[in-house]
Amino acid sequence: MPKIVDHEKQKQIVAEAAIRVIKREGIEQATVRNIAKEANLSVGSLRHYFSTQSELYAFTMNFVSERVKQRIKRMNFDGPPIVVIKNLLKEFIPLNEETRVEMEVWLAFTTKALVDPYLQPLSEKVYEELKFVMSYIIEKLIQNGLTKPHINQDLETDRLYALIDGLAMHIIMHPDKISSDQVDLIIEHHLQTLCK
Amino acid sequence: MPKIVDHEKQKQIVAEAAIRVIKREGIEQATVRNIAKEANLSVGSLRHYFSTQSELYAFTMNFVSERVKQRIKRMNFDGPPIVVIKNLLKEFIPLNEETRVEMEVWLAFTTKALVDPYLQPLSEKVYEELKFVMSYIIEKLIQNGLTKPHINQDLETDRLYALIDGLAMHIIMHPDKISSDQVDLIIEHHLQTLCK
Repeated sequence: MPKIVDHEKQKQIVAEAAIRVIKREGIEQATVRNIAKEANLSVGSLRHYFSTQSELYAFTMNFVSERVKQRIKRMNFDGPPIVVIKNLLKEFIPLNEETRVEMEVWLAFTTKALVDPYLQPLSEKVYEELKFVMSYIIEKLIQNGLTKPHINQDLETDRLYALIDGLAMHIIMHPDKISSDQVDLIIEHHLQTLCK
Repeated sequence: MPKIVDHEKQKQIVAEAAIRVIKREGIEQATVRNIAKEANLSVGSLRHYFSTQSELYAFTMNFVSERVKQRIKRMNFDGPPIVVIKNLLKEFIPLNEETRVEMEVWLAFTTKALVDPYLQPLSEKVYEELKFVMSYIIEKLIQNGLTKPHINQDLETDRLYALIDGLAMHIIMHPDKISSDQVDLIIEHHLQTLCK
């Protein structure tokens, strides 16, 4: 009986190996050779799943993005709007080991997408997805009559998005310079300044 | 008569070559070999100036940081405070080719510093320098009686800093998604929400 290999499952195992290599040694060391070694595969076998390094990277970035979405779907959305929104926004900031690894991978990939046209569409997709979340948050605040009058939805979406990504980057780059409590306070304060 | 080589000048030439390689091909291609080639030097000659790749990277990051400081020193600080501050903040956002290249190099280096302990101190230094600018801005607004009452200086410093770095990152990564005019509006609006 031939050995049955679950193609999709095997790709996920490779993606997890890629994440470990990026986390440990940085994106420059995340070569096909090193990822294959980490996944206990030959370079030839790995090429069976991903014909190029860019393809492997794109799959891994998508894998991380899906993991974030699944976690958000499992969240509890009961409670005061500002607390619920704050908790949702904190899912995009590396405040624990799991989200930290995800954000490092995202940052490494997005940086690489700058010079790799193959990764650009996925990088745009992830950008748009997160922008949609920000836009949805501002819209819900407005619709529920919680915001100050004359609020500019587009501007507040872009401002919130930049704030969240900036906080995320500061925590990734300089984890000892800004604490989880400070992030909490900043987000809560920002939401309060938008509201009555 | 022996050939006189200005050691410091030569290091700057190498840094400029490194910037061009990073800009064109990304940080992974910014190897000692490729940078030497770009600078028309042999790998051996380049090692005369920088004994390791990390040393070369650190020098280049410092070179970029000094260039930003020099440009800010030449700025005109006359005019209404919010306009002056907005123009100062815009120096840290890649709105033209010069600042764009600087920010790409900064992002590439900061990302690399995550896995290169040699680059970490310089990455911290650049972080602290920019945080000092943000803190100075908030302090001046408060001292000049422009801000709303009960403003929290530390929190507003961190919030402004995250906003500016987030905007910078969005412009680097997705230049067609957010315009220079939008950045202008967001910064001006943010400053206005801090003020009376």
